[in-house]
Amino acid sequence: MSFLTIGSVAIDHLETPFETRYNVLGGAATFISITASYFIDRPMLVGAVGEDFGDENLNILREKNIDLSGLQVVKGGKTFRWHGRYHYDMNHRDTLETQLNVLGDFNPILPDAFKEAKYVCLGNLDPDIQRNVLLQIKSPKLTVCDTMNYWIEKKLPELKETLKLVDVLIINDSEARLLSQSPNLVKAARIIRAMGPKILVIKKGEHGALLFTDNSVFSAPAYPLETIVDPTGAGDTFAGGFTAYLAKVNHISDLTLRKAVLYGSAMASFCVEKFGTEGLLNLSLLEIDDRYRSFLELSRIDE
Amino acid sequence: MSFLTIGSVAIDHLETPFETRYNVLGGAATFISITASYFIDRPMLVGAVGEDFGDENLNILREKNIDLSGLQVVKGGKTFRWHGRYHYDMNHRDTLETQLNVLGDFNPILPDAFKEAKYVCLGNLDPDIQRNVLLQIKSPKLTVCDTMNYWIEKKLPELKETLKLVDVLIINDSEARLLSQSPNLVKAARIIRAMGPKILVIKKGEHGALLFTDNSVFSAPAYPLETIVDPTGAGDTFAGGFTAYLAKVNHISDLTLRKAVLYGSAMASFCVEKFGTEGLLNLSLLEIDDRYRSFLELSRIDE
Repeated sequence: MSFLTIGSVAIDHLETPFETRYNVLGGAATFISITASYFIDRPMLVGAVGEDFGDENLNILREKNIDLSGLQVVKGGKTFRWHGRYHYDMNHRDTLETQLNVLGDFNPILPDAFKEAKYVCLGNLDPDIQRNVLLQIKSPKLTVCDTMNYWIEKKLPELKETLKLVDVLIINDSEARLLSQSPNLVKAARIIRAMGPKILVIKKGEHGALLFTDNSVFSAPAYPLETIVDPTGAGDTFAGGFTAYLAKVNHISDLTLRKAVLYGSAMASFCVEKFGTEGLLNLSLLEIDDRYRSFLELSRIDE
Repeated sequence: MSFLTIGSVAIDHLETPFETRYNVLGGAATFISITASYFIDRPMLVGAVGEDFGDENLNILREKNIDLSGLQVVKGGKTFRWHGRYHYDMNHRDTLETQLNVLGDFNPILPDAFKEAKYVCLGNLDPDIQRNVLLQIKSPKLTVCDTMNYWIEKKLPELKETLKLVDVLIINDSEARLLSQSPNLVKAARIIRAMGPKILVIKKGEHGALLFTDNSVFSAPAYPLETIVDPTGAGDTFAGGFTAYLAKVNHISDLTLRKAVLYGSAMASFCVEKFGTEGLLNLSLLEIDDRYRSFLELSRIDE
């Protein structure tokens, strides 16, 4: 089934306690679409970059067979830039600088073909833009939305309007507490699901993820990684793997949703093993399936 | 198989954001032995209380068919007392006061019958006392040890001597990081297992637990509880359920260890639903099995 994502396409400056890298390809839509390319032919990417983005980065996306007809290259514009620093435990990071640049007045008009998309993954972005894109899509089969604390704090009414329109929300545990104003994640899930999304995924970093549906709660383990090189994009990658797996099987049930959480987790575990998108560029389907099976094994009890 | 526990038997003063209770039966050995009583006939308890402990509390333990011949009632002595306060999110607590009282010079000599115990659960206590008890037991089949940050900080060399002698260590994630000096739990597990215990359980509170053995890592989910009344004793209850389940099946394998983690988790989830030991006093085996099955369902993927 067809897959579309919208989100930032960025150039990142990344600092970890062990290494610093400049001019690293990043952005939500980048991670999402590269991840989706392992599940879906020609994932559609909606975004904007500046002239500084460069052919090298465009070629990385082209090589993953991503449909870039929705990627505006703004003449004289500069690409969105993010500068982040991770702490020693890798669970915390500081944003040192954000340059919106071409994202400052990004207001995408979708190519006609993109309006037919069936599985839509709204990467973390201004909720007004997410909603604007969503409303251009004629009859989506599943809409998945990512967001972050920034939008919960700065544009809560707008975010709530977007949430009314989506089927799935993916957020992390601190964002879930912030959005719901409840410290208890079970209560938080009930409150957030009443805002619109019938399906809620709460990511808990090194503690895995929780999936809430009408019928059940699913607890997904995290892969026990001894070395995390760079957590950037892990959340986007999760959202991309989750949505694209569902697009591939084109069936929504508690079972496929649970599997989608594990595929999202598996892809995110590859992401953090290298800098930026590097961990996602040269995977084989066999490797992905092996990692998925490792996730299954982590919580399997055969009786 | 026979089951023995040693640990504090206490009278607690508990404050949560919603309620305060005085003179609540508590202590590691109390929670462990009450929990074990659902798996094992006549769990043996080693501990000490003062004359203030009272018949009412003794009767609670007697009614659970706990063998109290190893419980010293010290003439003129006062029972160990703990005063704790939980914060709003229930994941954090402050110890406001600890009165060691009769535990101050507790140095147990086991009754002969107790020396034959096969499954031993060393509740959180001074590691010298834990080791002293362990050395009195002739040929234990499995020894499980709990500890806490206090002993890691104050008596690390003594704790390390005890760890050399035990098969299983159960600690929480912050204690694992403290003991190993590593923020990464996978690395922490490797370092701690090299100290002695071949089997390590790291409890993560609302995020479940991890089990590390020679062969694999197991990730157990947490039960999604909307209301936690009182977390006191949850860790002890986990240790009791874990060890007593293994004593019941009398077989140690990756499968029984995984099940033991879920039974420990199931018992702990009952514990936190009421104050002190109240959530553990009137369970049926059917309820316990149902809760265990809920844990299985939480992470089940049927393919």
